[in-house]
Amino acid sequence: MTVHDASQYKVAKEPFYRVTAGEDALYKAAYARRMPVMLKGPTGCGKSRFVEYMAWKLGRPLITVACNEDMTASDLVGRFLLDKDGTKWQDGPLTTAARIGAICYLDEIVEARQDTTVVIHPLTDHRRQLPLDKKGELIEAHPDFQLVISYNPGYQSLMKDLKQSTKQRFAALDFDYPDATVEAEIVARETGVDPDTAGKLVQIAHRTRNLKGHGLDEGISTRLLVYAGQMIAEGVEPTAACLMTLVTPLTDDPDMRQTLQAAVETFFV
Amino acid sequence: MTVHDASQYKVAKEPFYRVTAGEDALYKAAYARRMPVMLKGPTGCGKSRFVEYMAWKLGRPLITVACNEDMTASDLVGRFLLDKDGTKWQDGPLTTAARIGAICYLDEIVEARQDTTVVIHPLTDHRRQLPLDKKGELIEAHPDFQLVISYNPGYQSLMKDLKQSTKQRFAALDFDYPDATVEAEIVARETGVDPDTAGKLVQIAHRTRNLKGHGLDEGISTRLLVYAGQMIAEGVEPTAACLMTLVTPLTDDPDMRQTLQAAVETFFV
Amino acid sequence: MTVHDASQYKVAKEPFYRVTAGEDALYKAAYARRMPVMLKGPTGCGKSRFVEYMAWKLGRPLITVACNEDMTASDLVGRFLLDKDGTKWQDGPLTTAARIGAICYLDEIVEARQDTTVVIHPLTDHRRQLPLDKKGELIEAHPDFQLVISYNPGYQSLMKDLKQSTKQRFAALDFDYPDATVEAEIVARETGVDPDTAGKLVQIAHRTRNLKGHGLDEGISTRLLVYAGQMIAEGVEPTAACLMTLVTPLTDDPDMRQTLQAAVETFFV
Amino acid sequence: MTVHDASQYKVAKEPFYRVTAGEDALYKAAYARRMPVMLKGPTGCGKSRFVEYMAWKLGRPLITVACNEDMTASDLVGRFLLDKDGTKWQDGPLTTAARIGAICYLDEIVEARQDTTVVIHPLTDHRRQLPLDKKGELIEAHPDFQLVISYNPGYQSLMKDLKQSTKQRFAALDFDYPDATVEAEIVARETGVDPDTAGKLVQIAHRTRNLKGHGLDEGISTRLLVYAGQMIAEGVEPTAACLMTLVTPLTDDPDMRQTLQAAVETFFV
Amino acid sequence: MTVHDASQYKVAKEPFYRVTAGEDALYKAAYARRMPVMLKGPTGCGKSRFVEYMAWKLGRPLITVACNEDMTASDLVGRFLLDKDGTKWQDGPLTTAARIGAICYLDEIVEARQDTTVVIHPLTDHRRQLPLDKKGELIEAHPDFQLVISYNPGYQSLMKDLKQSTKQRFAALDFDYPDATVEAEIVARETGVDPDTAGKLVQIAHRTRNLKGHGLDEGISTRLLVYAGQMIAEGVEPTAACLMTLVTPLTDDPDMRQTLQAAVETFFV
Amino acid sequence: MTVHDASQYKVAKEPFYRVTAGEDALYKAAYARRMPVMLKGPTGCGKSRFVEYMAWKLGRPLITVACNEDMTASDLVGRFLLDKDGTKWQDGPLTTAARIGAICYLDEIVEARQDTTVVIHPLTDHRRQLPLDKKGELIEAHPDFQLVISYNPGYQSLMKDLKQSTKQRFAALDFDYPDATVEAEIVARETGVDPDTAGKLVQIAHRTRNLKGHGLDEGISTRLLVYAGQMIAEGVEPTAACLMTLVTPLTDDPDMRQTLQAAVETFFV
Repeated sequence: MTVHDASQYKVAKEPFYRVTAGEDALYKAAYARRMPVMLKGPTGCGKSRFVEYMAWKLGRPLITVACNEDMTASDLVGRFLLDKDGTKWQDGPLTTAARIGAICYLDEIVEARQDTTVVIHPLTDHRRQLPLDKKGELIEAHPDFQLVISYNPGYQSLMKDLKQSTKQRFAALDFDYPDATVEAEIVARETGVDPDTAGKLVQIAHRTRNLKGHGLDEGISTRLLVYAGQMIAEGVEPTAACLMTLVTPLTDDPDMRQTLQAAVETFFV
Repeated sequence: MTVHDASQYKVAKEPFYRVTAGEDALYKAAYARRMPVMLKGPTGCGKSRFVEYMAWKLGRPLITVACNEDMTASDLVGRFLLDKDGTKWQDGPLTTAARIGAICYLDEIVEARQDTTVVIHPLTDHRRQLPLDKKGELIEAHPDFQLVISYNPGYQSLMKDLKQSTKQRFAALDFDYPDATVEAEIVARETGVDPDTAGKLVQIAHRTRNLKGHGLDEGISTRLLVYAGQMIAEGVEPTAACLMTLVTPLTDDPDMRQTLQAAVETFFV
Repeated sequence: MTVHDASQYKVAKEPFYRVTAGEDALYKAAYARRMPVMLKGPTGCGKSRFVEYMAWKLGRPLITVACNEDMTASDLVGRFLLDKDGTKWQDGPLTTAARIGAICYLDEIVEARQDTTVVIHPLTDHRRQLPLDKKGELIEAHPDFQLVISYNPGYQSLMKDLKQSTKQRFAALDFDYPDATVEAEIVARETGVDPDTAGKLVQIAHRTRNLKGHGLDEGISTRLLVYAGQMIAEGVEPTAACLMTLVTPLTDDPDMRQTLQAAVETFFV
Repeated sequence: MTVHDASQYKVAKEPFYRVTAGEDALYKAAYARRMPVMLKGPTGCGKSRFVEYMAWKLGRPLITVACNEDMTASDLVGRFLLDKDGTKWQDGPLTTAARIGAICYLDEIVEARQDTTVVIHPLTDHRRQLPLDKKGELIEAHPDFQLVISYNPGYQSLMKDLKQSTKQRFAALDFDYPDATVEAEIVARETGVDPDTAGKLVQIAHRTRNLKGHGLDEGISTRLLVYAGQMIAEGVEPTAACLMTLVTPLTDDPDMRQTLQAAVETFFV
Repeated sequence: MTVHDASQYKVAKEPFYRVTAGEDALYKAAYARRMPVMLKGPTGCGKSRFVEYMAWKLGRPLITVACNEDMTASDLVGRFLLDKDGTKWQDGPLTTAARIGAICYLDEIVEARQDTTVVIHPLTDHRRQLPLDKKGELIEAHPDFQLVISYNPGYQSLMKDLKQSTKQRFAALDFDYPDATVEAEIVARETGVDPDTAGKLVQIAHRTRNLKGHGLDEGISTRLLVYAGQMIAEGVEPTAACLMTLVTPLTDDPDMRQTLQAAVETFFV
Repeated sequence: MTVHDASQYKVAKEPFYRVTAGEDALYKAAYARRMPVMLKGPTGCGKSRFVEYMAWKLGRPLITVACNEDMTASDLVGRFLLDKDGTKWQDGPLTTAARIGAICYLDEIVEARQDTTVVIHPLTDHRRQLPLDKKGELIEAHPDFQLVISYNPGYQSLMKDLKQSTKQRFAALDFDYPDATVEAEIVARETGVDPDTAGKLVQIAHRTRNLKGHGLDEGISTRLLVYAGQMIAEGVEPTAACLMTLVTPLTDDPDMRQTLQAAVETFFV
């Protein structure tokens, strides 16, 4: 068996996260029962940051896996590698988490192939086991192990959705962008711009978020606002900074670009 | 030949299972003839728990495999691994079960590719054999070996259904959610909430189960009720607990969410 | 070259098979000329049992392969395995059969990919050869070797059908369920139920077989009748036994289930 | 370099083949120029036998490859195998043929994937080379090497057809079933039945060949006639022999079966 | 750990690049914050050249990867290779860049499969980490590491577009062909033709760029103008040079060719 | 590093090629600038022969790769092979060409998968580099290296076309069948038939070329005319020779065959 160094997965310092609706208490209660938790919400609204924050608060190691459609069950569970003495088993991130009692965070689970999704089933019911079929070993999850997944409802389609038998294994928390005051505070804190500029950036974002589904797939995320603030803090002229970080990345449609640029110019002349 | 330690697959203590309609006697009769059995029913209604319970009652080891569409026949049967002395055969879970006389439970068989499904054919007729084609060995199943599969009729589609030649190798038992009294008893017992709260949770579930096919793919499972009870037992306010465990995981449709929340609020004000 | 132990493929004792229309004499004549034979017929009507019976009668070893759509030509012919001295060739079941003079039975050939199907061509014409392209060896089939395949016309579709150039390499025998008297005798003999009960089971089956194509993909097979008989012989109440073995496995359609149950209740009140 | 034993590919004794339209002279002229040749015609009409016959007549070794849609370029050209001293190159059948100056016969080329088809290009123009890209070797074909392919126009579809750039590398010979007298002679000679019976079998075949495209994909081939004759020679009653070899293999359509059976009964009462 | 020689990725001499709209200052500000940057624009307008120029200006090593739809995450991140002492990890280009603090330029990212795209996520948010799941190592990106991707909006389709969760990780800069004077200067400088000829070539290009979407997928790029200039500088007659470099590569449609040729003949008689 | 023997790729003797429109001078000018060149034209019109001719004339080694849809980037670039001392890198044909300064000719590039196509990008712009990502090596192309591709516009389809970003990296030359006099001369020279017969064959070809798109995918190529001439030179009667080489390979449509045969009979009675 591989000896795992749990300490490398500890979150070293407190991540910046603003609790908004008691989601920390709900998560804590779920963790007390080691209940699997699903985080739902749009891109860049702070889901990953929240898990990091909770892992830090609970003092648990955190192992994050960015799921994708080409990921196999072996990428999660582990595989045999060829050594000079023959094959040697190498734990995957999920197995490592189950052994050391980490919080395992599967980011954008819906992107993964079904074998990835199904692999978590025995870890998410009363069994709390992970069978390593290829190795012939049955792992009992560490008492502190918990599984967390994220899920962007906007991506949900006929082709790619979680199976009911997977969904019904998780308690779920909704996430959304923070409210205007909190978001401005975040932007100011992370970039160094003054509160007024931060407030204007947030107002631009709010206008675009109403365009979601009316020509935009998603509105401007908090992350992009931080980019805008950083450019301004670097001395770039605000409209140029907004064009580069809030308009150009989002769309190539000329009309929509004009709409977005008008929103920028309302606040920065 | 690998030496298998059957004891690790023994079910250590009696799993909590409430017999409802003599399904234990029917299963026992089928096992007496080592008849392959198919368990049909919706997500989270207790199929896996039932097999565990019967394995415990019959004193047989149990090997469970969560099937998925990327699973190959080799994942079930076994494969050659590279060793320092060359290749070494490693039994898969089905082969292990056939050798040690375990009950082999293939969960959600319909998810598997056809090669998985076909591989069980010679084990499910008068032959009771498992040919390891790649190894050139023909295994006679242990006299105590039995095959059990689960099947969720709701998933059945034109693309994914069992072949007639597979279906007709199994006796079948229908499963559904337990009736209200039994289900409330289960929820109370597994979470520690009082009978009244448990009863309310079950009534919420009943309302949603009628919505199956009218906007919901499946109703709230017993598992989610247990999650709700656990959150309440952790001190979370009941409507918040229900929102997190009974509403948010099930749907992202705003109308359906309102309907579900209304159902919750009928019982918890 | 691998040394094969032909004796392990010998059919040890006479399989129970009831000849109904001189099919044994026809098969024997075909075998005298080592003519490839195709067995056509629905699921569970006794095709596999017939081959076993003929192999026993002719005293030839029998090698059975359950075909599936993920099976490769290598699964039939053989492959190189890694050994401590490098790669070592391992015969596949077809190659073994060709070497030792066995009857090779490819069950449900139509499920296999085309490379499997094409691989049998040189074995089924005047050449009677099997080229092991990967090994650079050309095997002359043993004088006693014969190829038998099974084929369920009900599965035939535009996507999956045998190529004409494959079909025209086989003589063919039609199979169907045995007539009522014979089938009742089989059920009684294999389960231990009295002739009257066996007769009733067969009559239920006959009613369902008329529903084929009118809501049922296939009627109740002899195998399921044997399951029903076994349950009854184990002391299970006949209607419960029939529900579990003749109704539930076949369909999930409520109307069709009612029809089947009515058929059961006509005979067992 | 592997040392090849050409003698094992020599056609040992004269194959039975009846020249019908000077095709031997045309083939001989093409071979004199080592021109690639394509044999076109329906299933079982003697294309493979013809190549064998010509290989025997010209005294050239013959290497036959049954193409299929899962065959890779490596299956034709060769691959590296792992040895105790590392990897070792193993020639594929096409490479072997190019080295020893054999006639290489690719049966049903249209079944193969395009990489197989393209691999033959440099062997079929003025270059007469086979680049082993994986080995970094450029083989000059032996002066006696020739490529022959077969092609069944009936299979041709939008999805599977030879590319023009492949087609235009071959001279082509049409094949069809032999005329009645010749075919009867073949049947009699290969089975031992009397000329009268052989003649009747051929007449049955002629009737079915007119049904091609009117409910039958292809008519009865000479090969099936030989099967029928063999069964009769084994003492099987002629109508039973014809049913098993001329009717049942061809179709499962009840009407078409009746038509075919009527044809049989016209000649054998 | 592999020791990387960063110096081999340094851009040795100043690449020729003409700044047009302060894009160098914007890029520099983004790099100061190590912000991921996306370059948008049509084929051959200088995106790759710009990254090279900035890498040179900032004195950072540059690692370029041409993305394609068959590229796997392992191609970016690294893989285990077999060594005489067993398996040895080999860093992929992305990992190398993260270790040595290079600018990693993923050219035409939209061509890549999703696993490639998702792999960059943890490198493009506050984590700046690259988990090597297969190796069980978590890399902290070098402080100087930056990720740059290119994106051709013209290719964007329903099937192939960046996910919102990817898009919103980048600031973006629009690129287009340089204006006429600058472009002519580039052509003259890179080919050696006189300014007048260069000017004519640019005017031909401008005419075709208006045809984009009206029969041409894209207009003539600066690169093709340079080809034309080079042919002319080699002494080829201008209309022949233009035909070979500006007309024939772009289209096979006879009408469109005539239109293009007419444009050429307007300037070179 | 593998040591390459460039001499084995030298074109030993002058290939027979008739320059028709100064294409040799244009190619030479392009080569002087090492400009990538694309040869466009129908099957068998002499594109491959032209590259060979130019390679001979310029005294450069030539490496030809027949592209196909199953070819991977590794087939072009190289791969690791297992040796007794572990893995050893083996250059692919493109890498070899880049190292030794050969002309690399990718025949029918449009057949290849996109990873093949994209792999050539850094070799076809100002970088002239080939990154061996798997090996971690960046090759600077030899100063004499040039890339040539061929492209048959007739194959172009929505599914299979070169990307604009690939197309715009090449200067292009159109090819077509030689004019009647030249083509007759070629046929006479390559087969040994008299000029009159050669002329007749060319006239037959001209008639069929007008049928392109009216029932024929392509007209008779020069190559097939050479086949016809060779058969006649071997003493085969001209109409039989034409049937075998000009009619049967091209089509199976009875009407079109009659049309072609009529064309043959107009010239050979």
